[in-house]
Amino acid sequence: MARASLTISSRNYSSWSLRGWLMAKFAGLPFHVQEVPSDDPAVRAEILLLAPSILVPCLTHNGIKVWDTLAIGEYLNEVKPNARLLPADRASRAHCRAICGEMHSGFTALRSALPMNIKGRFENFKIWARAQADIDRIKTIWHECLDAHGGPYLFGPEPGLADAMYAPVVTRFLTYGVPLDKVCAAYCEQIMSLSEMKEWVEAALAEPDQIDELDAEF
Amino acid sequence: MARASLTISSRNYSSWSLRGWLMAKFAGLPFHVQEVPSDDPAVRAEILLLAPSILVPCLTHNGIKVWDTLAIGEYLNEVKPNARLLPADRASRAHCRAICGEMHSGFTALRSALPMNIKGRFENFKIWARAQADIDRIKTIWHECLDAHGGPYLFGPEPGLADAMYAPVVTRFLTYGVPLDKVCAAYCEQIMSLSEMKEWVEAALAEPDQIDELDAEF
Repeated sequence: MARASLTISSRNYSSWSLRGWLMAKFAGLPFHVQEVPSDDPAVRAEILLLAPSILVPCLTHNGIKVWDTLAIGEYLNEVKPNARLLPADRASRAHCRAICGEMHSGFTALRSALPMNIKGRFENFKIWARAQADIDRIKTIWHECLDAHGGPYLFGPEPGLADAMYAPVVTRFLTYGVPLDKVCAAYCEQIMSLSEMKEWVEAALAEPDQIDELDAEF
Repeated sequence: MARASLTISSRNYSSWSLRGWLMAKFAGLPFHVQEVPSDDPAVRAEILLLAPSILVPCLTHNGIKVWDTLAIGEYLNEVKPNARLLPADRASRAHCRAICGEMHSGFTALRSALPMNIKGRFENFKIWARAQADIDRIKTIWHECLDAHGGPYLFGPEPGLADAMYAPVVTRFLTYGVPLDKVCAAYCEQIMSLSEMKEWVEAALAEPDQIDELDAEF
């Protein structure tokens, strides 16, 4: 059987690539990575947050092509049910999908003002009011999940769909030095210490820098 | 057993309300509607497309609260599997989720430039290039689905999740007089002739106008 493949773009900048990649890792699906060069116009637009992309991330498995991050998560949950990407309990599963949906369609102020940039570290970064409202909402979501399920991940002892969806936010909080309470800081540490995150971050740090050229287009 | 309830806002302007409401109707779930007054700040923001809302649409059923539109769809698919909101075949189901995901997180140019306004009719409306790119992508999606599954709905003979997700786009194409080929025009006609759509449109037309006041805030 042909191995699954996952198309991603920049490991440093593409938050959607990170989400899809983590989901496939958490699911335990063997896959190889296909990198789309960042001079592809659709990918450039995606990296620049101008448009969502149907190219990245995209999972191909058994002749089936799935190109939206949440759709990839649901697909993986179907083919690898024992990985429990989604909680077993119906109410928790609904809660998980609701907060994944919020990340999928919302937090636009956070996404445009604090884009993922794993290499970057910005001291005294000024957070504007609407991005702060997004950050506050995310903190509320994390507290509710960690309280309800006992941590250390959002829905209990193993990382799943929700953690993959919020992992890029964790890197943003570090990149932009967002002040966090103890509970949220511990959750961020938990995510960053995952072997999958370490692997991704290492590759992101080794990535040649391309954003100057992209920035020049504005 | 308590009846389910669905929180919605304006029937004329709130595309997410329409999506959630259609999903619950297609699922055959008995529910009553709770309308959030449009002077609620969160709802005002949502109507003005400033932010997604966790208030609207929101489904409460058996003590479970689900507040994201896609999460509502997945929840309804679980509790009413015979309604087949999602296709039975795994590959089609993945395709369905992918295009629903595109609608959920994307098409921002279309959403901001051609907001849902069921009462409105604008002749010679000027469509800017990025909204046109969104429109072209939607036409491609519709053609692919209708070709693959034979219509008259996106995934075959019965309306489902994907049709609910794209139904507000159908009303926008009519409101702004977007030129359509025969296949897409026939699909729009099919959606508008659903008894559920007729019920919604009738209520939207009867809704007191509130947008002038909202507009005045810009």
